[in-house]
Amino acid sequence: MKAKRISLALAVPFAVASVVRAQDPLPSWNETASKKTIIEFVQRVTKEGAPDFVRPEERIATFDNDGTLWAEQPIYFQVLFMRDRVKALLPQHPEWRHREPFASLLRDDIKAVAKMREGVPKLMAATHSGIITDEFTQTVMNWVSTAKHPTTGRPFIEMVYQPMIELLTYLRANGFKTFIVSGGGIDFMRTWVERAYGIPPEQVVGSSGKLRFELRDGKPVLLKLPEMDFVDNYAGKAIGIQKFIGRRPILAFGNSDGDQQMLEWTAAGSGTRFMALVHHDDAEREWAYDRNSSVGRLDKAWDEAVAKGWIVVSMKDDWKTIFPTTGIKQ
Amino acid sequence: MKAKRISLALAVPFAVASVVRAQDPLPSWNETASKKTIIEFVQRVTKEGAPDFVRPEERIATFDNDGTLWAEQPIYFQVLFMRDRVKALLPQHPEWRHREPFASLLRDDIKAVAKMREGVPKLMAATHSGIITDEFTQTVMNWVSTAKHPTTGRPFIEMVYQPMIELLTYLRANGFKTFIVSGGGIDFMRTWVERAYGIPPEQVVGSSGKLRFELRDGKPVLLKLPEMDFVDNYAGKAIGIQKFIGRRPILAFGNSDGDQQMLEWTAAGSGTRFMALVHHDDAEREWAYDRNSSVGRLDKAWDEAVAKGWIVVSMKDDWKTIFPTTGIKQ
Repeated sequence: MKAKRISLALAVPFAVASVVRAQDPLPSWNETASKKTIIEFVQRVTKEGAPDFVRPEERIATFDNDGTLWAEQPIYFQVLFMRDRVKALLPQHPEWRHREPFASLLRDDIKAVAKMREGVPKLMAATHSGIITDEFTQTVMNWVSTAKHPTTGRPFIEMVYQPMIELLTYLRANGFKTFIVSGGGIDFMRTWVERAYGIPPEQVVGSSGKLRFELRDGKPVLLKLPEMDFVDNYAGKAIGIQKFIGRRPILAFGNSDGDQQMLEWTAAGSGTRFMALVHHDDAEREWAYDRNSSVGRLDKAWDEAVAKGWIVVSMKDDWKTIFPTTGIKQ
Repeated sequence: MKAKRISLALAVPFAVASVVRAQDPLPSWNETASKKTIIEFVQRVTKEGAPDFVRPEERIATFDNDGTLWAEQPIYFQVLFMRDRVKALLPQHPEWRHREPFASLLRDDIKAVAKMREGVPKLMAATHSGIITDEFTQTVMNWVSTAKHPTTGRPFIEMVYQPMIELLTYLRANGFKTFIVSGGGIDFMRTWVERAYGIPPEQVVGSSGKLRFELRDGKPVLLKLPEMDFVDNYAGKAIGIQKFIGRRPILAFGNSDGDQQMLEWTAAGSGTRFMALVHHDDAEREWAYDRNSSVGRLDKAWDEAVAKGWIVVSMKDDWKTIFPTTGIKQ
């Protein structure tokens, strides 16, 4: 029975893979070393009988979200969602006009918020709690489809990176299971990542607040509480992988120092591994920032990538296009 | 691209389903109302165009483990693993001979341990910490394949319920994603549930301790700490489903009061739902226990099941066989 299930599971990905391969699986990637390394890695781990072959069950690929799968400037988009929530909730909280980080956010001074050490966690607690999970999901769904990015004017769901969507599709076509492992809020991401990336909610690892089970008129609800439960960033990403997935990835992709331990944890497994960082070096088509940025700082992880030979993807040189030209299905 | 992926994903489960159906998908179930209700539910939610149709992505099924997928008498098997760990670690902890719950456990007085309010958590902290995750996995793998059940003499991995394995297989063949949602330790279960049930580690929700990321000689490890991180039982099961899966199940199966909130949370979703409890009423072939048992107590959840028309499976009447006759592949 087991052997039968595996062979069926293999049959579909390989069928899709051969179609995709014939057409170039990564058309938005330039013909540079990054693309070549990705394709060679996938071929090595999927070739049955080869020394680097990895069973489909073990083909776990983890991706950071902010700055890796979608943009993160001028600040993490979830903070812009928080700003809109703060504005909507202001009538019940007039004191926010004179209290930080709310006051700066209400003045749209997001740079000030980004620099406050406890700015984002305080906003998270205030705007992501006191609401039941079903209502929160509805609020995020409405926002992500209607709110627009402040400089590009695109809906946020169209601020995703086309080359990375192609990579996710290519990996899944080759039997990989793709996961998000992000510092972003897990309930926030789960509402839209399936539509944007084809990643189902149960394959999302993120930061989360505590929940309380309550019966309201005999009906169970889960109330979001202001206390943090888990911070999925830095060492938290390696811990999050163990907690939520329980298998070590063979491929990990990030873009900032918050991804360093995820890449280290991935690299420390046996056999062939793939670790990569997106470097934001394209001020013309996207943004250029790295060692001194308060959002998506890339400093220590970059040094480690260079020292260890991990891939550093240059958006400028390696990506033919950045954002999708056709809209994401709303 | 998306539509294509979905139709391919559907093609395989339906192909398998038609083969399985032709042969009776649940041969270890007697022809009683329980079996009929299961099959009718699966047919209703998988028939495209029908009012109760559920997209494959939403076909989430959650199962308790102890007492639902494998046996749990004379005590949860993980406690017997703890006993063997306590014996192995005793040279480093001679004080355990005179301290509870260790002393009772060392005398094999597991009934006394089961009755101690903090007995199991104390054992868990002592035996599941101070070890890195990779080593812990190895220890559990060795144990589950070699240790024998105290009364049946079977390896623990063969104390699984054949009718439930058939049900898991039948659901997956019909496009369901099967999850474990158990009070048991997540790292403990993840080592063997794929072999026993075909459920991969990333589809296991369980109780867990905190972890610490450390570099040892430059190599990252995750150290298991004695502090509990999450208790996946009672209301914790509804919370665990939201935390780890992020989608509400359409089918949930348990056997004790610890599963009550999981079933309530499942029942509270819209559309057709399936909630069931295994009732241990077969003293001859397994064990008979319910309202007054210290292990797997079934009292309040039973009353709610009767009141709400959830299925109560009688092991005695509904199951043709209990344990697999052929061994699980070691």
